Amino acid sequence: MKLRVVTPITTHGFASIVDLIAAARPDTELSHVELDHGPASIESSFDEMLAVPATVAKIIQAERDGMDAVIINCMGDPGLDAGREAVRIPVIGPCEATMHVASMLGLTFSVITVMKSLRRQFEHEARSYGLSEKMASVRAVEIPVLELEDDSERLVQMLADEAQAAIEHDGAHVMVFGCTGMIGAAAGVERELANRGYPDVPVIDSMVWAIKMAEAMADMGLRHSKMSWPFPPQKKIAGYDFLPASTALSSI
Amino acid sequence: MKLRVVTPITTHGFASIVDLIAAARPDTELSHVELDHGPASIESSFDEMLAVPATVAKIIQAERDGMDAVIINCMGDPGLDAGREAVRIPVIGPCEATMHVASMLGLTFSVITVMKSLRRQFEHEARSYGLSEKMASVRAVEIPVLELEDDSERLVQMLADEAQAAIEHDGAHVMVFGCTGMIGAAAGVERELANRGYPDVPVIDSMVWAIKMAEAMADMGLRHSKMSWPFPPQKKIAGYDFLPASTALSSI
Amino acid sequence: MKLRVVTPITTHGFASIVDLIAAARPDTELSHVELDHGPASIESSFDEMLAVPATVAKIIQAERDGMDAVIINCMGDPGLDAGREAVRIPVIGPCEATMHVASMLGLTFSVITVMKSLRRQFEHEARSYGLSEKMASVRAVEIPVLELEDDSERLVQMLADEAQAAIEHDGAHVMVFGCTGMIGAAAGVERELANRGYPDVPVIDSMVWAIKMAEAMADMGLRHSKMSWPFPPQKKIAGYDFLPASTALSSI
Amino acid sequence: MKLRVVTPITTHGFASIVDLIAAARPDTELSHVELDHGPASIESSFDEMLAVPATVAKIIQAERDGMDAVIINCMGDPGLDAGREAVRIPVIGPCEATMHVASMLGLTFSVITVMKSLRRQFEHEARSYGLSEKMASVRAVEIPVLELEDDSERLVQMLADEAQAAIEHDGAHVMVFGCTGMIGAAAGVERELANRGYPDVPVIDSMVWAIKMAEAMADMGLRHSKMSWPFPPQKKIAGYDFLPASTALSSI
Amino acid sequence: MKLRVVTPITTHGFASIVDLIAAARPDTELSHVELDHGPASIESSFDEMLAVPATVAKIIQAERDGMDAVIINCMGDPGLDAGREAVRIPVIGPCEATMHVASMLGLTFSVITVMKSLRRQFEHEARSYGLSEKMASVRAVEIPVLELEDDSERLVQMLADEAQAAIEHDGAHVMVFGCTGMIGAAAGVERELANRGYPDVPVIDSMVWAIKMAEAMADMGLRHSKMSWPFPPQKKIAGYDFLPASTALSSI
Amino acid sequence: MKLRVVTPITTHGFASIVDLIAAARPDTELSHVELDHGPASIESSFDEMLAVPATVAKIIQAERDGMDAVIINCMGDPGLDAGREAVRIPVIGPCEATMHVASMLGLTFSVITVMKSLRRQFEHEARSYGLSEKMASVRAVEIPVLELEDDSERLVQMLADEAQAAIEHDGAHVMVFGCTGMIGAAAGVERELANRGYPDVPVIDSMVWAIKMAEAMADMGLRHSKMSWPFPPQKKIAGYDFLPASTALSSI
Repeated sequence: MKLRVVTPITTHGFASIVDLIAAARPDTELSHVELDHGPASIESSFDEMLAVPATVAKIIQAERDGMDAVIINCMGDPGLDAGREAVRIPVIGPCEATMHVASMLGLTFSVITVMKSLRRQFEHEARSYGLSEKMASVRAVEIPVLELEDDSERLVQMLADEAQAAIEHDGAHVMVFGCTGMIGAAAGVERELANRGYPDVPVIDSMVWAIKMAEAMADMGLRHSKMSWPFPPQKKIAGYDFLPASTALSSI
Repeated sequence: MKLRVVTPITTHGFASIVDLIAAARPDTELSHVELDHGPASIESSFDEMLAVPATVAKIIQAERDGMDAVIINCMGDPGLDAGREAVRIPVIGPCEATMHVASMLGLTFSVITVMKSLRRQFEHEARSYGLSEKMASVRAVEIPVLELEDDSERLVQMLADEAQAAIEHDGAHVMVFGCTGMIGAAAGVERELANRGYPDVPVIDSMVWAIKMAEAMADMGLRHSKMSWPFPPQKKIAGYDFLPASTALSSI
Repeated sequence: MKLRVVTPITTHGFASIVDLIAAARPDTELSHVELDHGPASIESSFDEMLAVPATVAKIIQAERDGMDAVIINCMGDPGLDAGREAVRIPVIGPCEATMHVASMLGLTFSVITVMKSLRRQFEHEARSYGLSEKMASVRAVEIPVLELEDDSERLVQMLADEAQAAIEHDGAHVMVFGCTGMIGAAAGVERELANRGYPDVPVIDSMVWAIKMAEAMADMGLRHSKMSWPFPPQKKIAGYDFLPASTALSSI
Repeated sequence: MKLRVVTPITTHGFASIVDLIAAARPDTELSHVELDHGPASIESSFDEMLAVPATVAKIIQAERDGMDAVIINCMGDPGLDAGREAVRIPVIGPCEATMHVASMLGLTFSVITVMKSLRRQFEHEARSYGLSEKMASVRAVEIPVLELEDDSERLVQMLADEAQAAIEHDGAHVMVFGCTGMIGAAAGVERELANRGYPDVPVIDSMVWAIKMAEAMADMGLRHSKMSWPFPPQKKIAGYDFLPASTALSSI
Repeated sequence: MKLRVVTPITTHGFASIVDLIAAARPDTELSHVELDHGPASIESSFDEMLAVPATVAKIIQAERDGMDAVIINCMGDPGLDAGREAVRIPVIGPCEATMHVASMLGLTFSVITVMKSLRRQFEHEARSYGLSEKMASVRAVEIPVLELEDDSERLVQMLADEAQAAIEHDGAHVMVFGCTGMIGAAAGVERELANRGYPDVPVIDSMVWAIKMAEAMADMGLRHSKMSWPFPPQKKIAGYDFLPASTALSSI
Repeated sequence: MKLRVVTPITTHGFASIVDLIAAARPDTELSHVELDHGPASIESSFDEMLAVPATVAKIIQAERDGMDAVIINCMGDPGLDAGREAVRIPVIGPCEATMHVASMLGLTFSVITVMKSLRRQFEHEARSYGLSEKMASVRAVEIPVLELEDDSERLVQMLADEAQAAIEHDGAHVMVFGCTGMIGAAAGVERELANRGYPDVPVIDSMVWAIKMAEAMADMGLRHSKMSWPFPPQKKIAGYDFLPASTALSSI
């Protein structure tokens, strides 16, 4: 099985290929690309609009490279709709995938993300995915995305603080990481929650789960419905030269 | 009062400045721009992603030019969220504006658009704007956006056919034009519906209403809440040189 | 353009024609009437039932007088349904109009009204208009309607107190005045909120917005759908002599 | 036990005291009043506004007369909110009561009423009572209210026709009479449905059920919450001399 | 009229026949049975699954014994769906019946139950019955079911404490007993709430109301729709010898 | 990885271990058990109540046997709540798992099941899982569960007929098998739909997907939240000797 992870920002080194490969099955061949055009990080709708075109270009390239599925490495699921229109292979958004599994693992979930200003994005996504009623709250550690990795023990404590508050004040039963850059911290947060008197509260590492879903879908040959995401009509495009040149979707 | 209309495609001549000025009040100074970068028309999420960055650039420019409000000339409301983040002046999306007034003018409304494939877009918008329950159906005349103007009497008949079907089969009480390129056809469709036994069914020319809303908001000095659409954090951007150069939001 | 404002209570001087005219465009001819039959103010469903028949009589009279639109000067929107049945011209309820624009100006809004006991009314209206999910809370300054005008600086402070609480405790992003008698206080409350650290939070003067909507609808010739509000069947009525005598709807 | 039925129209003889007494328990003392002020029948919001003040006057009188509960004899539940504000004894609206029991007797229900134009009213009521999802459809026999009694065998056939259509086309599992003037026809319609191949489909005679609910509530001493329907504040009222003179609520 | 109460647990003496008869009308013949197979009490889905088969056996037996209706004496409404499939006589679940009447007696209700762990059950029931929006909260006195009767004055105080908290913190206007074992305490709690400044707040004794509903339905001959709960197909069953032997539903 | 499939009926040979193993990954050790106590098949709530206790016994046994996860082989998800209360290992219900993935693969899905009478069950499940809005319809081939295997080519045709009708009449974009006994037919139905002009419509083999989900969860060590499904309190149980004897949950 061949999976492609697209990290939809231009900052190199944000996502570690080692972490990603560790999340995949041993027999999965996982590759990783970042963007040449777009923002350094995604923390607003403005940033997202700058990330989407190049992300979709990378999704199209992944299909051409013979990938079985492609995963967008960002909880904003940037390019999910446009990407699904452009290709036939499964395109996984970690937010969509994780909100669904969180809804199965408990009656309610909270998202713990980087910045409070992302709350609108998560409420919008929960509504789009039909799961608003399950989302107890969105909380943030107030660390900008690109500073996430600096001190991982401190990050675990801050995530556990917000998770505990989500349990005690918002009625949350499951925790969802609201930034794929938090990869690797779930076990630590679960342990810390247990120490604080809350054992058996699942903490979902969103990017790891997105990879699991890609593997499961590719295993079964499942693809998204082209009735929901039909191929876009061919037409003239000005600019966006980085879109794969000979595709039916490119500029003419 | 100074209004700016942004037509978020690269096809020149799609929107007629004469039609737009006719829709505004005599004392309104209305100007119009099209895109240099983006798609020839918008009929998919793929097209939309190509339209948004340049649309937002034009929205930022409109604020710099001292406009009182800016209107996006497309029922997909492309760039509405990112544009509102980037500026303080009101940004009007004709779909949002029209779905709200349609909800006031009747118990239910139907959208009559160009292509059936846009149904997902309108359902997504109705859900985002909280008005799903009011939307009886989305119907289409199956004319590609760029061929809309060819034969306007035929267009009125086709719009009336779908409107009649929406009344008889979907329980619609109000009609909403699902493409701003249909500007000018509302009176004809109302008349035709009356001829067919359905008088007093409002047909809303979405782009005209969007201009009315911009005028009304600017009259009162109303602006969107920056708690909902805060300014995006400043950061490095690769590409997108067409974004206004010295803005707080430009690449560094 | 000719607009008629109906203040649906018998207390003279509650609404100032000066304030109303100031809210309209210079070229709008605005007239104002109060009720001869009904309650001194509206603070319950009981009061509302006493206000509706005479309000609808005034709405019918407005159409006969050649008005282009009529506005009900009360946030309970008394007589909105019956009035729309009785006439063809647009009938604007300030609560309906303002809840819709508030939904466009931010993700959530709070209503700041006179008395806590009106909460049921606003929740009922939000549900009827389909906007319950957008309404963060209903708060009250606990001043009876008829004492509103007494001390307007104190009123601004009290409105700002509740608005601040709505922001901090209820997650509100936009403020809606819950009584049309608060006309004129919006700019003061916005300023006060900015002083307290919340700039760029729109405060909507509901009655002013209702006038803007009436102007916008009349500009475009938009009217409510008679499929939603058909004319009532003609029949015998005992009492209610104040209903216009020769109307199709009067007693026989 | 003492119950009062208020028929909220001025047409005498619409409701038969014999039918009403037959619906009550043998030990229930049931009395009946009609209106002196108001419409001949209720088929619109316009009619309803004319019925409410005198209906509430009769509800207040019922409490003064020592009634244990009062029932409004109309599926529009006119005066339910204002009436509950005005008194402490239970006020039963047959539409509210019947929609709730219909939701218990099956997964979905349809309302079979007199005129299609009442659909908005029933959708409004279903939404207010929180039961919209249970209501499969509103259908009508297209007989004006005051002509209902003319030919009861024909009425049963017409009700059965609509009930059968509701089962076959709308997915309805329970039938609700949408006019209290249909009292007495339920057994006939159930029999006719069984003849047509649909046994065991409950047909609810709304006015009979409303009387049962009044008896059950009075048996237990249950009353509505004054937190939901507080007494209206006392104030000046112009007109409406028929409101009980010495009540706290009367004009001063 | 003949009613059968099924107490769906194996603990004898939990329900007092004296209390049950006191709740019924004088002319009602009420009988009572407990289970031979099942749990000592119901406080989880696990307990409920053990209670349902024998409960349904008792429901079938009730129909054979000529009962007019049967009431399940537990707020989890165990066996409501399967029981309604198995018989034609009305099967009353006290939770369903009480949530509906609570929705009529006020804008919101809270459930005061025995243990916080039952919250999921009540949320599930409110959702199934379509009344989630009316339920303000679920609160618990934290007394295990089987210890409820020990000290009834203390129980009234604890119920009043939670009711007061539901009013003050959750916005509840009506109280619902969340365990049928609380039978008899409603008047005391209402009195206590009045003492604490909250008069006119209805407190509903769920089991008493369930008996009232059974009487009302049987009075009118109302039964559940077999379109919603059709008879189960006949088939082989291994075990469950306590199911009535010759029924169409028994093992073959 | 060790998975246990519990087929919750007493009919031997309904589920083929060969099919189940084919669905799992090569390195997964999959075992299978059927019930000793319960119904021959599940086609009603009555049948389900007979299946649940023994299903939960098998789930407890699976945890004792060291399984990593357990899957209930029935689209009614019988015992999902009680089973999750009783153990810590993941318990997968194929209906819950498949409705969630179907919501990701398209905008709407339809369930194609065995008998129309199961519609209530699927609507109940969709509501419980929060996905009602995504479910376009429930359709049935009208073959009793136990006759499913007889003629698999005919089954594929009948499934394709209903799937085609779901696309054309109900607006479905994704198909979900509504009985786990349909295992193995998905590829055939997809092919047949493509032949009929509907390529790229995913058809989800629910039981295969449930196994994929169990593998994915076990891979990551994800378990359900014990805050949502706490262990049931220990108490006396009469009967049900087949429940594992020494468990904390057994009868005392």
